[in-house]
Amino acid sequence: PAPHPEPEPAPGLARRCHQRSTAMLDVPFLPFCAFLGTLGLLCVAMVGTWCQHWRGGFSLDGSSRTFNWHPVLMVMGLVVLYGAAALVYRIPNTWSGPKLPWKVLHGSLALGAFVLTVLGLAAVFHFHNSQGTPNMYSLHSWMGLGTVLLFSCQWAAGFGAFLLPWAPAWLRALYKPIHVFFGSTILMLSVASCVSGINEKLFFSLKNGTTAYKLLPAEAVFANTLGLLILIFGVLVVGALARPSWKRPDSDSPDSRQVRDTLGG
Amino acid sequence: PAPHPEPEPAPGLARRCHQRSTAMLDVPFLPFCAFLGTLGLLCVAMVGTWCQHWRGGFSLDGSSRTFNWHPVLMVMGLVVLYGAAALVYRIPNTWSGPKLPWKVLHGSLALGAFVLTVLGLAAVFHFHNSQGTPNMYSLHSWMGLGTVLLFSCQWAAGFGAFLLPWAPAWLRALYKPIHVFFGSTILMLSVASCVSGINEKLFFSLKNGTTAYKLLPAEAVFANTLGLLILIFGVLVVGALARPSWKRPDSDSPDSRQVRDTLGG
Repeated sequence: PAPHPEPEPAPGLARRCHQRSTAMLDVPFLPFCAFLGTLGLLCVAMVGTWCQHWRGGFSLDGSSRTFNWHPVLMVMGLVVLYGAAALVYRIPNTWSGPKLPWKVLHGSLALGAFVLTVLGLAAVFHFHNSQGTPNMYSLHSWMGLGTVLLFSCQWAAGFGAFLLPWAPAWLRALYKPIHVFFGSTILMLSVASCVSGINEKLFFSLKNGTTAYKLLPAEAVFANTLGLLILIFGVLVVGALARPSWKRPDSDSPDSRQVRDTLGG
Repeated sequence: PAPHPEPEPAPGLARRCHQRSTAMLDVPFLPFCAFLGTLGLLCVAMVGTWCQHWRGGFSLDGSSRTFNWHPVLMVMGLVVLYGAAALVYRIPNTWSGPKLPWKVLHGSLALGAFVLTVLGLAAVFHFHNSQGTPNMYSLHSWMGLGTVLLFSCQWAAGFGAFLLPWAPAWLRALYKPIHVFFGSTILMLSVASCVSGINEKLFFSLKNGTTAYKLLPAEAVFANTLGLLILIFGVLVVGALARPSWKRPDSDSPDSRQVRDTLGG
């Protein structure tokens, strides 16, 4: 008789079947990232083209050409660069060896995204103030500013907990799932803010004559398509972050001693 | 000497620490659901109050009072009832015993959400057609209709794969992660559609005099708050769906034979 008889139950068959089936769905991470990078660059190029070609280009004079920096900087910062920062720990190279360089990369990309975001806010406040328009009345502005405030808390708390050397291991372990949850949440809110902002801007800009929004002129088709591409970008990044097979296999591994050693050594 | 010497490495300490820390974050599912249900009912009550108190109430005559059914039915169907349907498999009672009743509950709640959604679409198309306004030009409408189309595919594919008895186990196993991914994605898109729709409606309705949107009258504060509550509801449902400790412990368990037996028996 076999030394370890293991009768084959029905669940075993189904589990193998499940593993084979999910293996069929496996997309390699790096080609997916290349696709996502292309999509992100396309979104940035399209928002730039929209503002340059249809909305009069860019300036710092407080006119609507100052406003035009707002959508460009928000899509660059709070969507594309933020998405890149969020995905750093899905690169398999980050799963072994010293963590500090990857933490610095993650934090730096997020800081870059934050700087672009603040400049994007400055553009719209400068435009409103120059025109005598009140700030912060629309749902878009409430949601957008809430997203940026959450992002600033997220960056500061991440820096304090994971990059500064003195956070205790229990605090890092406690905060990590919160940081991960808000990482995806902020991106979702940011994408929802972009979409409501593009929708609102088109209603503001396309009012009369042959370019009325409801007649769906070329600009409306272009900017609506941009909105859908931003949505797809956000959904793909949040999906990639949630995908179990792209997470670090032992995500519970400690990261407290290593940074302390590296920084203190 | 001990028969199985296991030196205590630093990771063991950190892992215990991690387990203790995440236990500190553990929220029981059912009280969370009660909170979520209250929040969902509050959203429905608020969208109804907005339309009744500020937008003139409800009718079927093709006027803006017909339009008012649109936000109410969408928030009821595509947000709150959809969220309830999505969370069915997070109830611990569903993890043991026959699965068919829970599948029927999940499918029925989703079907109810779909019916309300289609009625909500009918309301806005009827309103536009009565007023001679074109349909489907705004980014809100593109995103919203895309969300409903995805939802119809999701319902039909879920019914075909999980409720009809003849889908093979490999197909169920292949499709399940796709169904789960689109389950969260559709809710995110739906919430983004709601927010852009509320924003757009306020710009349409609050144009002149003392009730201009930019002067932030009571209606604007109320509807902006509604938009934020819908966002919070969506984020909490998507977060609850993603939370590992609320998933069925052995989520790879086969479900193909059991349904076939139940339906065929």
